[in-house]
Amino acid sequence: MRVTVWNEYRHERNPEHAASRIYPEGMHTPIVHALREAGMEVRAATLDEPEHGLSEEVLANTDVITWWGHAAHDEVSDHIVERVHKRVLDGMGILCLHSAHYSKIFRRLMGTSCSLKWREIGERERVWVIERGHPIADGLPEHFVLPHEEMYGETFDIPAPDTLVMISWFQGGEVFRSGCCYHRGRGKLFYFRPGHETFPTYYDANVLRVIVNGVRWAAPGSGPAPVYHNQPPLEHVKEHS
Amino acid sequence: MRVTVWNEYRHERNPEHAASRIYPEGMHTPIVHALREAGMEVRAATLDEPEHGLSEEVLANTDVITWWGHAAHDEVSDHIVERVHKRVLDGMGILCLHSAHYSKIFRRLMGTSCSLKWREIGERERVWVIERGHPIADGLPEHFVLPHEEMYGETFDIPAPDTLVMISWFQGGEVFRSGCCYHRGRGKLFYFRPGHETFPTYYDANVLRVIVNGVRWAAPGSGPAPVYHNQPPLEHVKEHS
Amino acid sequence: MRVTVWNEYRHERNPEHAASRIYPEGMHTPIVHALREAGMEVRAATLDEPEHGLSEEVLANTDVITWWGHAAHDEVSDHIVERVHKRVLDGMGILCLHSAHYSKIFRRLMGTSCSLKWREIGERERVWVIERGHPIADGLPEHFVLPHEEMYGETFDIPAPDTLVMISWFQGGEVFRSGCCYHRGRGKLFYFRPGHETFPTYYDANVLRVIVNGVRWAAPGSGPAPVYHNQPPLEHVKEHS
Amino acid sequence: MRVTVWNEYRHERNPEHAASRIYPEGMHTPIVHALREAGMEVRAATLDEPEHGLSEEVLANTDVITWWGHAAHDEVSDHIVERVHKRVLDGMGILCLHSAHYSKIFRRLMGTSCSLKWREIGERERVWVIERGHPIADGLPEHFVLPHEEMYGETFDIPAPDTLVMISWFQGGEVFRSGCCYHRGRGKLFYFRPGHETFPTYYDANVLRVIVNGVRWAAPGSGPAPVYHNQPPLEHVKEHS
Repeated sequence: MRVTVWNEYRHERNPEHAASRIYPEGMHTPIVHALREAGMEVRAATLDEPEHGLSEEVLANTDVITWWGHAAHDEVSDHIVERVHKRVLDGMGILCLHSAHYSKIFRRLMGTSCSLKWREIGERERVWVIERGHPIADGLPEHFVLPHEEMYGETFDIPAPDTLVMISWFQGGEVFRSGCCYHRGRGKLFYFRPGHETFPTYYDANVLRVIVNGVRWAAPGSGPAPVYHNQPPLEHVKEHS
Repeated sequence: MRVTVWNEYRHERNPEHAASRIYPEGMHTPIVHALREAGMEVRAATLDEPEHGLSEEVLANTDVITWWGHAAHDEVSDHIVERVHKRVLDGMGILCLHSAHYSKIFRRLMGTSCSLKWREIGERERVWVIERGHPIADGLPEHFVLPHEEMYGETFDIPAPDTLVMISWFQGGEVFRSGCCYHRGRGKLFYFRPGHETFPTYYDANVLRVIVNGVRWAAPGSGPAPVYHNQPPLEHVKEHS
Repeated sequence: MRVTVWNEYRHERNPEHAASRIYPEGMHTPIVHALREAGMEVRAATLDEPEHGLSEEVLANTDVITWWGHAAHDEVSDHIVERVHKRVLDGMGILCLHSAHYSKIFRRLMGTSCSLKWREIGERERVWVIERGHPIADGLPEHFVLPHEEMYGETFDIPAPDTLVMISWFQGGEVFRSGCCYHRGRGKLFYFRPGHETFPTYYDANVLRVIVNGVRWAAPGSGPAPVYHNQPPLEHVKEHS
Repeated sequence: MRVTVWNEYRHERNPEHAASRIYPEGMHTPIVHALREAGMEVRAATLDEPEHGLSEEVLANTDVITWWGHAAHDEVSDHIVERVHKRVLDGMGILCLHSAHYSKIFRRLMGTSCSLKWREIGERERVWVIERGHPIADGLPEHFVLPHEEMYGETFDIPAPDTLVMISWFQGGEVFRSGCCYHRGRGKLFYFRPGHETFPTYYDANVLRVIVNGVRWAAPGSGPAPVYHNQPPLEHVKEHS
């Protein structure tokens, strides 16, 4: 399993931003570590690298990509978004994390605005597991708590997930579809809500477990490759005259 | 119910094309008539009109749009596609008919390639109703026959429909998800497969009934309008310090 | 539209039970009134009537049934449950309200245990609309509040709904899939969570609106009736020797 | 992975029945072999054994059960069906094969009649893979052919699958949802259509691959176990007075 952990990596390099203290080596680093500990081959890629670190070669050698972006969605080049999109339809898995709800690639794959409500006061979030038999629920308790998170509230403007695995409760009164699975082409997409840059969410054991489980679930299979063409009849047909 | 029937309307104006004989007044005309007979207020709009006949005003006064395009998908301006997309997310219903599977608007709403297999030998199609309790099945038999149609075959690269209402059988050996319902934003989308321009499909009573039913199903509701914003707490929360 | 409002009607007839003060004429009465005001033809039926008020004739003349039960699920005869089940598969709509999650008919239609977490301290519930374009969302705000309700918490052991229309937030920390749509046979089922007998929930305007919308959505269509049989070939097949 | 392959095992023991020549050691035998070759620990169990071979101990040590029955569904004791049902909700996977569509356990888990159309003339079936990224599609071609099979035709009276993986085409004109995935409780269910007792279907490499894939997909996870109870508040709630 070869994973590319993609991160915008701007907040953390700004010494005045809280993220620089919580994630001094970048928000991608704890994710990279957790995936490596799970036995995966992991590389990081970030916005300010050439081609955002997502060359044709890197993507061709990526089974699953994870994506975190926030303030610089618009700086991701449309060309690279098309490249990632094509790879997902060809089978590469993708995890869109937290504010990646508004990334170009997520919106492209969803076809909707992907808008939502939000609030940044560091309130309590409870993530409830709804579909307990799903592989992304492996090893999780019935629910887990994040003591301080940004709130995301419904309506979340997404297509209904193929499988809804988790729902979040927020102290301030909102709910949110927090763990959403989709098939798109031959690829699989998992959206996972938590992960605001001013909280140590990506050090939380349950959050990391969900990400590891999500990557495993999104791994490419060996189902039939797409063949789209003018197809001769498989059965005898008297042609129309 | 105010419906706009959108048609590319190129094949039918080419006297050398079979469509000009089958649909001398355009493929939109039998659809317009069927919807009017069902008591709806219907206008037609076509590619070669200014703004493709889809001004802000027209769309603001459209409850449901039906879309047929084929050879000139690329000539539909991105600006108008964005306008239609926005209206769908705001609640306007949309029916994508046959080769509109490859239109910009359908691909935009699906997020996938929308590719498929095809064959143009005028073989027999049998459309089977799968979800009998769905309003789009109203008045239909268990299955109906189109004696000569273009074949569309799986895999059809779309997200799994929210509701799969119909599946087609083809004489040459293929199957196809023929009647697919989706919610997108506040809007509803129905994809309906039949309708190749060289066959009199849009004069078929069952096909017209599906289109009338589909328009009724896709009609805008009066559910809550989207409000996406920074939301103050609804419940008391001790703010994070 | 002919509706039968079914109620266990035991708590309300016990003068020592809070329900007798809140619903002196039975919990069915405000529901009956709301549906009548919406122009429907409504009758009530209760557990202690002969055949629980659900004779073959009553059911044959019912388009949609609503069901509320709680303490006496086991007293509903299996024979009547089979009768209702058969009618649902034949097209009759059904709304299962609150503690009907544990009724024989709901469990029969779901195939799962339909168990859940609960708590009776009269806490605040916020019902959030998730699928805003669905007819059951018509006329609703983005969310509405029930100041005092029993809590129902996930995991709710049901099959994933065909459409998830609403999710509830509870003051004490739980979430719940509160508005769940299913197709079963030719019939449609809507589960709606609120409605504990010790709170005046069925006088709430939003709750009543959901019930009216739900009944309309669940109304039988005119799709093809089930024909299950040994079917001769529709196409020529050289038989297997 | 511990698998129990359950078979009615009556047709094959009747020397006048074609099944006795095609499957002299029982229809379960090629399935048992294929699962063993895939590295699983497999036992067979049959109707005429005590407790149908499904003691509490056997089920407690079964991760996934496969089920084939046809003429003797009614002879399966309700007590054992309840036992299997309970185990599925607790996490055991189940594959229902072909005529098991009408078994007590499948109908119990579906909540519908599970009726369908059928025809026994040994016509050609083409099984098309629809969801190519699903693990059950691993290693399959876009479609595969069974030269002679019993036809099963829509409408198949089941709840819409959580994931529809395959659709069958039949020479005589019908279609069928052939590979259907469901979550039920903590368990997973896969229905797979082919497998009439008078054809050598369970020797077909693609069919066996689907069964092996299906068993792997249905394997129990380690998600949270069900806890249904009266739950104290997780958050402070001022109790209702």
